Amino acid sequence: MDPTPLTVDTINPKVLKCEYAVRGEVVTIAQRLQQELKDKPGSHPFDEILYCNIGNPQSLGQLPITFFREVLALCDHPSLLDKSETSGLFSVDSIERAWKILDQIPGRATGAYSHSQGISGLRDAIASGIEARDGFPSDPNDIFLTDGASPAVHMMMQLLIRSESDGILCPIPQYPLYSASIALHGGTLVPYYLDEATGWGLEVSELKKQLDSAKSNGVSVRALVVINPGNPTGQVLSEENQRQIVEFCKKEGLVLLADEVYQENIYVPEKQFHSFKKVARSMGYGQEDIALVSFQSVSKGYYGECGKRGGYMEVTGFAANIREQIYKVSSVNLCSNISGQILASLVMNPPKIGDESYQSYCAERDGILSSLARRAKILEDAFNSLEGVTCNKAEGAMYLFPRIRLPRKAIKAAGAANTAPDAFYCKRLLNATGVVVVPGSGFGQVPETWHFRCTILPQEDKIPAVASRLTEFHKGFMDEFRD
Amino acid sequence: MDPTPLTVDTINPKVLKCEYAVRGEVVTIAQRLQQELKDKPGSHPFDEILYCNIGNPQSLGQLPITFFREVLALCDHPSLLDKSETSGLFSVDSIERAWKILDQIPGRATGAYSHSQGISGLRDAIASGIEARDGFPSDPNDIFLTDGASPAVHMMMQLLIRSESDGILCPIPQYPLYSASIALHGGTLVPYYLDEATGWGLEVSELKKQLDSAKSNGVSVRALVVINPGNPTGQVLSEENQRQIVEFCKKEGLVLLADEVYQENIYVPEKQFHSFKKVARSMGYGQEDIALVSFQSVSKGYYGECGKRGGYMEVTGFAANIREQIYKVSSVNLCSNISGQILASLVMNPPKIGDESYQSYCAERDGILSSLARRAKILEDAFNSLEGVTCNKAEGAMYLFPRIRLPRKAIKAAGAANTAPDAFYCKRLLNATGVVVVPGSGFGQVPETWHFRCTILPQEDKIPAVASRLTEFHKGFMDEFRD
Repeated sequence: MDPTPLTVDTINPKVLKCEYAVRGEVVTIAQRLQQELKDKPGSHPFDEILYCNIGNPQSLGQLPITFFREVLALCDHPSLLDKSETSGLFSVDSIERAWKILDQIPGRATGAYSHSQGISGLRDAIASGIEARDGFPSDPNDIFLTDGASPAVHMMMQLLIRSESDGILCPIPQYPLYSASIALHGGTLVPYYLDEATGWGLEVSELKKQLDSAKSNGVSVRALVVINPGNPTGQVLSEENQRQIVEFCKKEGLVLLADEVYQENIYVPEKQFHSFKKVARSMGYGQEDIALVSFQSVSKGYYGECGKRGGYMEVTGFAANIREQIYKVSSVNLCSNISGQILASLVMNPPKIGDESYQSYCAERDGILSSLARRAKILEDAFNSLEGVTCNKAEGAMYLFPRIRLPRKAIKAAGAANTAPDAFYCKRLLNATGVVVVPGSGFGQVPETWHFRCTILPQEDKIPAVASRLTEFHKGFMDEFRD
Repeated sequence: MDPTPLTVDTINPKVLKCEYAVRGEVVTIAQRLQQELKDKPGSHPFDEILYCNIGNPQSLGQLPITFFREVLALCDHPSLLDKSETSGLFSVDSIERAWKILDQIPGRATGAYSHSQGISGLRDAIASGIEARDGFPSDPNDIFLTDGASPAVHMMMQLLIRSESDGILCPIPQYPLYSASIALHGGTLVPYYLDEATGWGLEVSELKKQLDSAKSNGVSVRALVVINPGNPTGQVLSEENQRQIVEFCKKEGLVLLADEVYQENIYVPEKQFHSFKKVARSMGYGQEDIALVSFQSVSKGYYGECGKRGGYMEVTGFAANIREQIYKVSSVNLCSNISGQILASLVMNPPKIGDESYQSYCAERDGILSSLARRAKILEDAFNSLEGVTCNKAEGAMYLFPRIRLPRKAIKAAGAANTAPDAFYCKRLLNATGVVVVPGSGFGQVPETWHFRCTILPQEDKIPAVASRLTEFHKGFMDEFRD
């Protein structure tokens, strides 16, 4: 007899090492509190948990875009299209779009596995959406549809990382999918620091410094991750800065992994989204000059369809035999879910002027985006009014990442509680207010600085209460721990 | 300047090593032929490509179960539930079920990320479906909903495999997801051979022999994969055999990874599906005695909803701190798609007696399953009538795996064409008939034996033509190469 029972000492240590703070300890406590509130109303000094830890708009009451859902319902149950009652329930253009999509699916079989890169006709639609966005060609064969952006990121990490001496340059702070994926694939995260003082500026000199330092430690750096608009920082890169980054990747032979899932989320008039592909092409760089992957998702933007798990990556500048390897790995999982694929095609090709749904679609979209901009501003102002707190503007994305200067006494109390100072603060905040935010340590931060990430997603009528609860808590916290 | 352009020599060698024959070379050729037929009708001696390479029923014309799609459409576009026209378009019980599901989703937000294991209420429904199936309790906290079964298998391989000295016992022939996943995670596939002569029998003596041999080679065997009903073999294990397997895993301290995605696909009256959990519990073994993972999918059964990417794993017998690790890895990808989650709950809880849809549901289900049984029999008989071919019965699943005794001259010709003899046969078959099957080498087989896998999924009216095309081709092939 030779039993090898599974223990944490005998599982894959890469799994142990992986961390994902967005659904980490603070969220686990929040779920417990929520259950306690349900079992015993009045048991806490708040009557609901407000999940500001995760970019999950519909969980906080954001409604889906009607046109998108109409098309999805019709594609899920195509026999509706043969019934006369349907025209009373669905817009004319959603019916037309559903027919068009069904005609692109062999046998109209929305329940069949598709091509492993996704349904060909939907990839055509996405490529034409990218062309319309960028003004440069996009090849449907470069599109790989995925169940949200996360599996696409894993696929690229899997391709690039051979061992711990392969490094990936990642911003700090970063979205912890990157650190988690690099850990799971056994590589090395090479950090580059965004400069909080200049609105989370990305300096090429910092990239170069960190690249050289990694090389001198024997790390072979393979790729650069850029998140634009930034998560958790909310910064939107200038086109000039993007050109420098493209130049840097080209010169250093790095794959540019561009997380562009917040491309629709821009809240300030002075900034615009430019895809890295557009920037590279406008510099005259083509497929031969730079390897570039752009990640997009249906979970963000104004649509926020997180639960649908749709997304794609556009893979350019890779040799044909590498592309075959990416296809092969995709094929092992057969394909991404078809509803997510359809939604990705809709997001990149929403209703156009003249379509029956166009006006209501625009009203829904603009209502959500302008409300997000207002919410971002109110929370930013609230954070900046707090003692010892500074917060850069959310130019884009869905988050604020305020810096909190914690009193030494609080840091000491955190040490006594065997927890990081920012996690200490976030747990106290949760217990006092029901507001769930994520400690900065989950994203990375300059040592001895402390932050947290807070989404701007609570519904607008709740924002004042969130701001006042935060303010009240912070005052009490500072009063308790002020040096 | 230090460019590190990506080549096949500098990517992760585990990716290079991974193979997935179900969408491999033969399928690539088929896609080319299909394009040629479209561009130039009449350019080949057949007018359509018949994809018998993959268990993708709806791609070959199988219709979805109406009730399931009704519920999905209503959940996709819940505002339909407020409209009076809806009652004319949907069954009463689909409307009731949609309400019930929506009530289980916080905020009725089908577009929100769920708990990383899946929506709690849907896991309750699945657990109660498992209890009804097995007669033993199932804990919703043991259920992890996934985008089809494949990601669940990857997750377990990722947990179990630390290096190439960790081994996973897999049947030969096997479904190549297992070999691909083991390769991607850098482990060692420890083969055990199913006995073709006894209907692909699984002998515990063979398991023991291969386990000991692996151990003596320094491989630490961590888990045993069993596919029941079998893919590609179609065998259904007897309960007695399953008890021996459970006993073996318990004694040797192996995790039992039970691929039970074909649990609804049984075609012979003398066999029944028994889940490994039911078998283990009926032996008196509980959570403390054996670590057992059961994989289920919405892609197979009579429903065949491959494109929806729904599935789950039921994880039992793992310590709480290991379960936390599985949860953590799930949380990095946030959650599986909600439509797939809903469908998984429906598949485990279809309409019941008294529900408005019950009769039509039964008619659809039984029509598909009895037709599959007839198709399996016709194809099995056709294969067995061919010179040098023997084919075990498909007791279950969706495949036949005939053995072809190839003439030496054919083997020589294959060698000259630098291809495996079974792949040579399959490519010739494709070029002559348009029928796509997968060479046995993609699944593994006893050396010097040759097979292919053929699904039983073409619609019933096409089966005679498939059989006669296969027969005609085989005669010609043998005439050409007979020794």
